[in-house]
Amino acid sequence: MKTPTSLQTLVEALRVLPGVGPRSAQRMAFYLLEHDRDGAARLSGALSGALEHIRHCEQCNTFTETPLCEVCASSRRDPSLLCVVETPADQLRMEQTQAYAGLYYVLLGRLSPLDGVGPRELHLERVVRRADNGTVREVILATNFTAEGEATAHYLGETLKQRGLRVSRIARGLPVGGELEYVDSGTLAQAFIERRSVA
Amino acid sequence: MKTPTSLQTLVEALRVLPGVGPRSAQRMAFYLLEHDRDGAARLSGALSGALEHIRHCEQCNTFTETPLCEVCASSRRDPSLLCVVETPADQLRMEQTQAYAGLYYVLLGRLSPLDGVGPRELHLERVVRRADNGTVREVILATNFTAEGEATAHYLGETLKQRGLRVSRIARGLPVGGELEYVDSGTLAQAFIERRSVA
Repeated sequence: MKTPTSLQTLVEALRVLPGVGPRSAQRMAFYLLEHDRDGAARLSGALSGALEHIRHCEQCNTFTETPLCEVCASSRRDPSLLCVVETPADQLRMEQTQAYAGLYYVLLGRLSPLDGVGPRELHLERVVRRADNGTVREVILATNFTAEGEATAHYLGETLKQRGLRVSRIARGLPVGGELEYVDSGTLAQAFIERRSVA
Repeated sequence: MKTPTSLQTLVEALRVLPGVGPRSAQRMAFYLLEHDRDGAARLSGALSGALEHIRHCEQCNTFTETPLCEVCASSRRDPSLLCVVETPADQLRMEQTQAYAGLYYVLLGRLSPLDGVGPRELHLERVVRRADNGTVREVILATNFTAEGEATAHYLGETLKQRGLRVSRIARGLPVGGELEYVDSGTLAQAFIERRSVA
């Protein structure tokens, strides 16, 4: 027996989702058709709705439905602080902490020479132009602590400092509630190196 | 910052997928919008395509795009054998073994008194009518070896035997390549009880 064509098409289409292999795609397709056709219709509509309405903010690149995103358009954010993150998801995580009241720039990637992504492909000149607008006083580099995120932060830091801008990097160290016994050596070593003096 | 509405709608809609919680729904939504808008459009179309075209076979209940599914419509299948499974996915698994050349009946569920699913709700009289059509010689019960699948098989077996039909149950035992040391006790005990005489 062959699976019906439109069912097979659905199974294959579900594999665009990250972390979904052939087995779970099949399980999802059968589940939706058998138990949740309403949910499947909602999902279909939500996908096309998001594709239609979600664009990138003209100023910071994050996802938005309006030309400027809510953060960039807000008068209550501090325009002298600019936080650089890799992805819209990272920006959302930062916002969820409610610990930051400045603006953002979302790189939509990171330097990755092996994949052919250099400063030009990442349009890093746009970050520099954005940071050098006369209003920004400090640029906070919040790229990931991966090799590529670190390289991106290093490159941006050097470039921005040459323009006379104040640049900082979010801290590495133990997680809140973290115990020395269970943290990896790299993090512990870094927490030691980056120790803060106690007033 | 609030997430844009259509993005939030997409994150919530993705949670209809089995095994997808809030975190992975968010990851999927951001991934699609950032890296695979074509794939998202394909998925949206595949969902509505499947919803439009996939129905249940009039004879066996499995998923099909035609009134009768490919198996039921085939002249090369043995109509004297009827295999009863719980779901279309189970039927597909059986077909993938290429070990069975008869027809199917898909219950679209299993007896589950705690959830209010009794013989009536599962329309078991339809199975009996289907099996008692004068052509079927043997009914093979291939429901799961869970408590509910076993109850369903037991109920169906008793009912069908009263009609004078031959009824069998797929075998329990060690998996192919299975080792006694690693198999669970229940399965090993059952494999012992259901041992076959060697000719």
